[in-house]
Amino acid sequence: MKNSNISNSVIRRLPRYYRFLGELMNEGKEKISSKELSERMKLTASQIRQDLNCFGGFGQQGYGYNVGVLRGEIAEIIGIEKKTDVIIIGAGNLGRAIASGMNFDERGCRLIGIFDDNPDIKNTETAGFSVMGMEDLAAFCGENSPKIAVLCIPEESAKSVCDELISLNVRSFWNFSHFDINLHYEDVTAENVHMGDSLLTLVYGVNNRQNRPANGVF
Amino acid sequence: MKNSNISNSVIRRLPRYYRFLGELMNEGKEKISSKELSERMKLTASQIRQDLNCFGGFGQQGYGYNVGVLRGEIAEIIGIEKKTDVIIIGAGNLGRAIASGMNFDERGCRLIGIFDDNPDIKNTETAGFSVMGMEDLAAFCGENSPKIAVLCIPEESAKSVCDELISLNVRSFWNFSHFDINLHYEDVTAENVHMGDSLLTLVYGVNNRQNRPANGVF
Repeated sequence: MKNSNISNSVIRRLPRYYRFLGELMNEGKEKISSKELSERMKLTASQIRQDLNCFGGFGQQGYGYNVGVLRGEIAEIIGIEKKTDVIIIGAGNLGRAIASGMNFDERGCRLIGIFDDNPDIKNTETAGFSVMGMEDLAAFCGENSPKIAVLCIPEESAKSVCDELISLNVRSFWNFSHFDINLHYEDVTAENVHMGDSLLTLVYGVNNRQNRPANGVF
Repeated sequence: MKNSNISNSVIRRLPRYYRFLGELMNEGKEKISSKELSERMKLTASQIRQDLNCFGGFGQQGYGYNVGVLRGEIAEIIGIEKKTDVIIIGAGNLGRAIASGMNFDERGCRLIGIFDDNPDIKNTETAGFSVMGMEDLAAFCGENSPKIAVLCIPEESAKSVCDELISLNVRSFWNFSHFDINLHYEDVTAENVHMGDSLLTLVYGVNNRQNRPANGVF
């Protein structure tokens, strides 16, 4: 598996391949050509061959790709079987939406705890968990060593929460706050979901439809 | 304003410029050089000059950029002053999180209605709105012509909801479902927030830290 020096854009497309291949499996499809896959995903066939070659090139001339094998290889590259432990910080509407709506298990994760410092939310039940207070965080992390923290908190509290989490050796963040983690810390892994930026991109698209790419996705 | 033929990646960075320039304004900064801006945003200065040139090049040699003017120009390009009308479909946890947590007004939008077909949710109050039933959608759209629909619904119901919305002349979607709108319709504008793909990207990052880009962002 030659997964070093993979470009960011290929990495960004990996989950999409994984998702489409899962749908193909559900449809009972066992093999697929790069041409068929390209029509389905609206990428070019050569783009697909190039992307998949980055990971070792499993396609066979004249046969195409074995759907299950390819999906399994991508799962291994992503590390889905490793089951990374996750905690959620912030159990407001968004935190609860993620706790109850996201299938962590399917995505290589295991949700192990939810925290909030709001006394009205603490000790309430969400997605089968009793929400813990922030004062419980240090002991919990000492005992359970979660790797990923999902930040469903406002920007104002993000810096102090990140300081604490990093001191507790949590270094990976699924970040829904508008706080730019990567501008403040070294050696952290962050996936930032800037919902506000996403909405602005759409607003640009609505107001500039003449400049819209053919597939409507920016 | 020469905003045709702008690449997708520049468009994707526009909201980020807008956000950073807003922070600079809040700090009372009136001008900034591309070098300072680049350090702050962790982009190269030449990247910034190139990006901003796409929109007409407002920088002045030896002076830099006027923060307020530049932000205003970007706001105009995005179309923030136009106030695009938005409805939310689905008032579960995620729909409620977006209705109450997203500052639509700051982002060129006006939230005008929330819909859900769950009888337990219909007629409840969210973010100052009484949630309407899906049977009210056609009359509401006929009267108010919303342009953007925020889809906070499961993949299974997305196709039929999109069919209906498109028949009601809503052609722009902020899509939180896993339904790939662009693969099913022509002439729609969609901004897809694939939260599951985002989490998988992070899981890849956690499991492949040695291949992580220097800034930790994929």
